[in-house]
Amino acid sequence: MKKIEFFFDIISPYSYLAATQVDAFAQKVGVDLEWIPFLIGGVLKETGNRPNIAVPAKGKYLLRDLSRWSAYYQIPLQFPSDFPKSTVLVQRILTALPTEQRSEIAMKFFEAHWVKDEDITQTEILAPIVGQEAIENALTPENKERLKENTAEAIQRGAFGAPTFFIGEEMFWGADRFVLMEEYLQQIK
Amino acid sequence: MKKIEFFFDIISPYSYLAATQVDAFAQKVGVDLEWIPFLIGGVLKETGNRPNIAVPAKGKYLLRDLSRWSAYYQIPLQFPSDFPKSTVLVQRILTALPTEQRSEIAMKFFEAHWVKDEDITQTEILAPIVGQEAIENALTPENKERLKENTAEAIQRGAFGAPTFFIGEEMFWGADRFVLMEEYLQQIK
Repeated sequence: MKKIEFFFDIISPYSYLAATQVDAFAQKVGVDLEWIPFLIGGVLKETGNRPNIAVPAKGKYLLRDLSRWSAYYQIPLQFPSDFPKSTVLVQRILTALPTEQRSEIAMKFFEAHWVKDEDITQTEILAPIVGQEAIENALTPENKERLKENTAEAIQRGAFGAPTFFIGEEMFWGADRFVLMEEYLQQIK
Repeated sequence: MKKIEFFFDIISPYSYLAATQVDAFAQKVGVDLEWIPFLIGGVLKETGNRPNIAVPAKGKYLLRDLSRWSAYYQIPLQFPSDFPKSTVLVQRILTALPTEQRSEIAMKFFEAHWVKDEDITQTEILAPIVGQEAIENALTPENKERLKENTAEAIQRGAFGAPTFFIGEEMFWGADRFVLMEEYLQQIK
């Protein structure tokens, strides 16, 4: 069966927007979906890309654009008071989780960061969401390596930002390409 | 009556995509539309933004993304063999034209550059499209200054890329925000 791979990072607001839509989208188009954590910081560094906020005018517009999408999708969104924060710990936790638990926990992390303005670098915030054991599992050398591998794999396949979707080796970037993914899936039916 | 201002540059492929859609969009939503030439080079320089092709992975993806949109909108698009080229002359010509002639001539320039791979820096290419007089009108100091003013105005109002749309002082960036413009126009009805 065809599959959508959804590479995301909790730090990325467009990953959050996409995350709120992608499950329903996969169901609608009838394809499997895999949520794959990666580190956008590593992607930007390796590809020479920069975050939107590196250009002040773009950073200012980003806030308007996010606010419009949140109204359009009718989802809550509040820009964090402290941004950007390291998401290495949350991304490691998500990597260590069984695949089928990832979307549910990822949404809770997204909401902590993008709705409730909670400090997602703190284990006191994360433990009630995911449990202490999941945090410990996240810190093994093997798991840390897996997250690095996810990031390296995305870069190797062409990623330069987040969210990044793959359908086979066809890459789609951003929270605003669902219409093109749908078109592509119809073509390869 | 409400108005959409459409800032575009012939050099910008997403300006071309937007240009193929914007007249029908304005008609559908029932608002006035003004096509306003500006120089994206000046905008990037002033804001510190960079073109997509500055990041190799992004440049590679750009080709796929453009090809998908052209299939989606069923419009022809061929990436120019020599890119980027200076669009100062075509943008000056468009600036000098009466407002009501701009969209028609701009579409011909977009097609010369983005479909026929013609050298739009050459007056031999442009004269048959727009006439020799329009080229001469473009080269007056007053007209050159007007194009600079359009560019400075867009930057001052928040632009950092192309295409850029304004509805009043609400700015929308890119060829993929029609849905949000429509939403906004409904809100302010």
